[in-house]
Amino acid sequence: MSHRSCCDFSNNTDSFFQTLYLCQRVTPKGEIAAMNTQQMEQMGQFKITVWEEENFQGKRCEFMLECQNIMERGFNKIRSIKVENGPWVGYEYPEFQGQQFILEKGDYPRYEAWSGNSSYRTEHMLSFRPIKCANHSDSKVTLYECEDFQGRKFEMCDDYPSLQAMGWCSKEVPSIKVNSGAWVAYQFPGYRGYQYILERDRHQGEYRHYNEYSTQAHTNQVQSIRRIQH
Amino acid sequence: MSHRSCCDFSNNTDSFFQTLYLCQRVTPKGEIAAMNTQQMEQMGQFKITVWEEENFQGKRCEFMLECQNIMERGFNKIRSIKVENGPWVGYEYPEFQGQQFILEKGDYPRYEAWSGNSSYRTEHMLSFRPIKCANHSDSKVTLYECEDFQGRKFEMCDDYPSLQAMGWCSKEVPSIKVNSGAWVAYQFPGYRGYQYILERDRHQGEYRHYNEYSTQAHTNQVQSIRRIQH
Repeated sequence: MSHRSCCDFSNNTDSFFQTLYLCQRVTPKGEIAAMNTQQMEQMGQFKITVWEEENFQGKRCEFMLECQNIMERGFNKIRSIKVENGPWVGYEYPEFQGQQFILEKGDYPRYEAWSGNSSYRTEHMLSFRPIKCANHSDSKVTLYECEDFQGRKFEMCDDYPSLQAMGWCSKEVPSIKVNSGAWVAYQFPGYRGYQYILERDRHQGEYRHYNEYSTQAHTNQVQSIRRIQH
Repeated sequence: MSHRSCCDFSNNTDSFFQTLYLCQRVTPKGEIAAMNTQQMEQMGQFKITVWEEENFQGKRCEFMLECQNIMERGFNKIRSIKVENGPWVGYEYPEFQGQQFILEKGDYPRYEAWSGNSSYRTEHMLSFRPIKCANHSDSKVTLYECEDFQGRKFEMCDDYPSLQAMGWCSKEVPSIKVNSGAWVAYQFPGYRGYQYILERDRHQGEYRHYNEYSTQAHTNQVQSIRRIQH
């Protein structure tokens, strides 16, 4: 709890989920790949279980490493999720394309629990991966008034449910540099609407234009932003 | 910005919205009520504009004080909102009943931008009020394992996008005491699903049973919680 400055657990117990499972890494072509040292180290750090039906029913599959396409495991859809160790990011399409969904530890009994954007209801989540660079105690991001890191800027290391309430003068953020950690930016205030996962370890942390926020982004509207934490 | 420990505005300018408007307080019966000193003091601290159509079109109305029933202003529905000074809480039904929606400064061009719970699509927001006790620099809440503040407890003064990730052993929170400030608790991780506005200045901050979280609550599921700030 060192990264939280002010909290207290009384009679804290271990978490619900203690069991670790065997893990394989399966490539998009279905081969079982050898895990390197880094991947071995990550075992146990991340765990997600997905079900084909709502409320944790039907076919299930557990993952401790990324999944490039759940349909190759015989799934038509993912309709419920439990994250036992996270965070993860889910994607609308295979190979980490399309709309993004932040998935932190907890229960997601149906699509609405993770999508946060009901006006765009394809209800697909077909690939997902762990977010490895999340480090809550060392998160910094810079927002820029114009594309390509031009214009006025705003450096921050805290969560902002309303950028406008904090003095950002627009509902738009044309470019973003992630200096450290991992962040999730949202279209609307209060952490709602389209979600964009922004990481120091991807794009070198540089998002020069809104179409780099996501392969699906068609607006530079960003009205809230927060850190992603382990 | 004193309540934010680590941020920096470069060339910060004034906010978008500077204009103040005349204000009336209209009772449920349509009378214009005299404002007391406290209400006068609040003028300028809160401002919300609502429209009958999406994307800030059609009939509009501005408020700087609570509205118990928007239908008494001739509205059928509210389909878009701009919060210029907040925070506010919106309610599904007149007189602050039913599902709750936290409304912080920013633009909400359609229902989905504030509801966060697309599985329950009545699309009503018929009353709203300012949240007066929000004080980000002094927020503390205690979660309890059982109803009536019994069992193990967890005191916190920070935002938690996943209570389970922080060690809370269940997806349920049976009772909550707000020691200071105002909070919003959410059904799902990552600030999604049903929203419950919990304030020190209401219920004396005591929520002994989940049916006190909201008149519409039918579950004690709470998987994320965060402070509300001015």
